[in-house]
Amino acid sequence: MLDEMNEEYNMITLSIPTRKRIDFVEISDLVQKEVSRAGVSEGIVTIYVPHTTCGITINEHADPSVADDIIMQLTKLVPYQAGYRHMEGNADSHVKTSLMGSSETVIIEGRKLVLGTWQGIFLADFDGPRSRKVFLKILRSEV
Amino acid sequence: MLDEMNEEYNMITLSIPTRKRIDFVEISDLVQKEVSRAGVSEGIVTIYVPHTTCGITINEHADPSVADDIIMQLTKLVPYQAGYRHMEGNADSHVKTSLMGSSETVIIEGRKLVLGTWQGIFLADFDGPRSRKVFLKILRSEV
Amino acid sequence: MLDEMNEEYNMITLSIPTRKRIDFVEISDLVQKEVSRAGVSEGIVTIYVPHTTCGITINEHADPSVADDIIMQLTKLVPYQAGYRHMEGNADSHVKTSLMGSSETVIIEGRKLVLGTWQGIFLADFDGPRSRKVFLKILRSEV
Repeated sequence: MLDEMNEEYNMITLSIPTRKRIDFVEISDLVQKEVSRAGVSEGIVTIYVPHTTCGITINEHADPSVADDIIMQLTKLVPYQAGYRHMEGNADSHVKTSLMGSSETVIIEGRKLVLGTWQGIFLADFDGPRSRKVFLKILRSEV
Repeated sequence: MLDEMNEEYNMITLSIPTRKRIDFVEISDLVQKEVSRAGVSEGIVTIYVPHTTCGITINEHADPSVADDIIMQLTKLVPYQAGYRHMEGNADSHVKTSLMGSSETVIIEGRKLVLGTWQGIFLADFDGPRSRKVFLKILRSEV
Repeated sequence: MLDEMNEEYNMITLSIPTRKRIDFVEISDLVQKEVSRAGVSEGIVTIYVPHTTCGITINEHADPSVADDIIMQLTKLVPYQAGYRHMEGNADSHVKTSLMGSSETVIIEGRKLVLGTWQGIFLADFDGPRSRKVFLKILRSEV
């Protein structure tokens, strides 16, 4: 029983609403909030998306044009239609997801995510709008 | 001596045969089997490919057309021949590998890999067919 | 006080000079040196770049043509100019960074990085030359 409660505590689930078909939503503050709540001072956090048409990427959060440019260029490289075999109208979303990746790992020091000045963590939805899940798993270190 | 035995226990090596030059082979069940055997209830597993023409990606496993589409589109973006300098006939395989990445990290909860409904873990061979190695490293958590 | 000293010890910062706008610099030996110094026998190391125009990739280090081919092909896919909205002249660098990713995780066994024969860890600068930081975070395992 206690063990099961621990399990629940251990992995954190975020629900992130997205607003259009292709949408980058910054989740840095939400991740930081959970790291603070967990009370872990030193370690790493794995940020994992359990979807196949939605990934994670870290890039500039100061100028939203950067996310726009990533989206524009990914769409040139992997167009909405390109003779795909997958027949659900979202084959491009799957390909883009593999290019971005399903997870990122960020270091925790002094209870803070160690992000560069310009870095933000983005949920990269390629088949929205909908509610997406992000799983967080924190590992303490003790060197 | 014991320490060496521990080391061997610690990192797990899978051998995965691939069947053609570009081949996505799902390894989710093999990874789950090793996680179960290790008896780790909560943590993460790093899935690492020690090759330079073969990567790892997570994407849909229900419809094999998705892997076909990823392969088709990657081959349009990084053709077999494109004036490459590397002279071993597999320069494209190296480039594709860097686009997919050499590892993935998956969360373990209740002795199970936490994968989304549609997610499978794929070895993405870009220079097969041959036998490929995949290294698994499990880290327990104890928040 | 001791705790703060531990924190500092915990995350390691490398400073890597790059030599041109797009430059892949192998950092495998520098990472190995820090793993040896930390005295961690079994675990993982997360190699994290806190920049948004510079990533990390693992690929062949024996023939430098491989890095050249990755750079050439990435530049075809994401040209220096392509009608980007981000106005700082490095929009392409941001897009390339998301394609490569901001971190890699490598396994440690017997105090050594577990790299394949041909694998090297590369800092992939897309907006140099300058001095770049790489953060290393080592997590011990104890299965």
